[in-house]
Amino acid sequence: MSELRRDPIGGRWVIVDADHSRAPEEFKHERNVFRGGTCPFCYGNESMTPPEIESFRDSSTAPNTPGWQVRVVPNKFPALQIEGDIQRRGVGIYDMSNGVGAHEVLIETPYHQKDVSDLLNTEIESFISMYCRRAIDLTRDRRFKYIMVFKNYGAAAGASLEHPHTQLVALPMVPKSVMEEIKGAQNYFEYRERCIFCDIIRQELQEQERIVLENKHFISFCPFVSRFPFEVWIIPKKHNGYFCHMSLEEVPFLAGILKETIARLKKVFPDLSYNFIIHSAPINSSGDDGVEYYHWHIEFMPKLTRVAGFEWGSGFYIVPTPPEAAAKYLREAA
Amino acid sequence: MSELRRDPIGGRWVIVDADHSRAPEEFKHERNVFRGGTCPFCYGNESMTPPEIESFRDSSTAPNTPGWQVRVVPNKFPALQIEGDIQRRGVGIYDMSNGVGAHEVLIETPYHQKDVSDLLNTEIESFISMYCRRAIDLTRDRRFKYIMVFKNYGAAAGASLEHPHTQLVALPMVPKSVMEEIKGAQNYFEYRERCIFCDIIRQELQEQERIVLENKHFISFCPFVSRFPFEVWIIPKKHNGYFCHMSLEEVPFLAGILKETIARLKKVFPDLSYNFIIHSAPINSSGDDGVEYYHWHIEFMPKLTRVAGFEWGSGFYIVPTPPEAAAKYLREAA
Repeated sequence: MSELRRDPIGGRWVIVDADHSRAPEEFKHERNVFRGGTCPFCYGNESMTPPEIESFRDSSTAPNTPGWQVRVVPNKFPALQIEGDIQRRGVGIYDMSNGVGAHEVLIETPYHQKDVSDLLNTEIESFISMYCRRAIDLTRDRRFKYIMVFKNYGAAAGASLEHPHTQLVALPMVPKSVMEEIKGAQNYFEYRERCIFCDIIRQELQEQERIVLENKHFISFCPFVSRFPFEVWIIPKKHNGYFCHMSLEEVPFLAGILKETIARLKKVFPDLSYNFIIHSAPINSSGDDGVEYYHWHIEFMPKLTRVAGFEWGSGFYIVPTPPEAAAKYLREAA
Repeated sequence: MSELRRDPIGGRWVIVDADHSRAPEEFKHERNVFRGGTCPFCYGNESMTPPEIESFRDSSTAPNTPGWQVRVVPNKFPALQIEGDIQRRGVGIYDMSNGVGAHEVLIETPYHQKDVSDLLNTEIESFISMYCRRAIDLTRDRRFKYIMVFKNYGAAAGASLEHPHTQLVALPMVPKSVMEEIKGAQNYFEYRERCIFCDIIRQELQEQERIVLENKHFISFCPFVSRFPFEVWIIPKKHNGYFCHMSLEEVPFLAGILKETIARLKKVFPDLSYNFIIHSAPINSSGDDGVEYYHWHIEFMPKLTRVAGFEWGSGFYIVPTPPEAAAKYLREAA
């Protein structure tokens, strides 16, 4: 019989097919194939993007020329615009505001065909440091209430350009799904006076069943209430609400576990497309900022199945591979 | 500048690109192509499905043989099983229960290649009546708290079989996203003593900007806070919490607007894949069942774009075609 599992943070239920766990070779996912062509994110094409906001580059080179290791530019087709006032207003019974915000693209490496798992640890550390720098800078703008850092890798994951890049969006309000996660964590904290994420880490380390990798400062694991098969979370052991406040000591450990987690996923699913999203506490809140009970983490969603009417209508996900089985495949893919 | 719009029911924000409205020909969506092969839902192959639960058929024919117009069978690979107790229990800090529920497939027509827009009005009335019969029957089982009726049409919408069919799932708990919609409607009702959906209908009929079609009992319109381009809702003008309680007089009007809405969508996007979901009030609740403030409706989601990291991380959707523009395209596709 299948199992129903309830997300202790957001209250979402999922259906886990515990009887017929689907093996990796049974997923017919769309392969991520590189197409080539002129790439605006490659060396020599810097003029094809808007002028860079910030970069790590050889000190002998000028902005918007080759010689960079990590480069941040405004999104050429931004979802939100940096100038202007928010101006919340009503339209009959509806509410709206202006689309004010920031939308940046962080080019992780000059190498077009390298995914995170192909980079050196030090290269990964560089772009993680840049995530933090950009988040800290955007936080200074008091109009922004949330910073989302996310990566779409492969066409099936919605990437429109293949060159490895991450997007940063600064939003003028906290998104609903983030607010729900915060509220769930808050309810747990009020009841138990403990961080729910710290409790999850404790239970996962004790049971070991869903752990994929562990190092000094991080674990990666398949969550008990995965919404997608082979969903993986990476979370710091030390309680911390904001990813951009991670300590310098943690950075290389995050780089290592990020690289190895992606390497394992791609060993099990060659040419995988995936999304990852950094979940972090809201910024510039007028009251409680949630850092006491919220705990930053990264959520990985491999694109193996399609979301259909059932999931759209209910938020009730059907997971064909239990997270315990998925974690075992990933542990054994060493 | 783009606009941010807030869903007055669930509180979700979306970004609408009001400056560069994307035209239908600019969507590169996956085409729905029929592949053929042996189909378990076609005449003569009735033994390939589990035995039928209910059907509309010529009285001279036996169950599980040809001669039916609409046929309901258990899903061969059910997400939930009909037998057993729910047994809610804890696993450390997590919660779970047994996967008890019903998962049925309603075969809308014997014709493999006919979508709703290709059927006669009377044929559509037949399967709508069958939706209601099955929902009323499943409601008798007190273990079930919610009935979801949804259709996946085309591979891009997650359909694994091409023969036109709808799925019915009876769940032992109310899904989180339904609960949010109910709560939003309840908050509005407590504040204004009016149904929010009735107010939306009133405003849409007054503004006319987002209306696609209207008949005596229903309207179809592109919601102000569409999450997807060319999203369309069909809603009865008369307040009613449950779709299965619609009056006999309403059935032919629903058949007509359903057929014409799909015909318009497919005129604008030939070979479109789509999902639709019937949203209806929870059943067998121990207290308030929400029928005073909840108003059943159908939500249509054409599969034109991919959902990527931004949407997954935030629940913040980016809509490249404003609903006002989408409704205009659909109105003019007569």
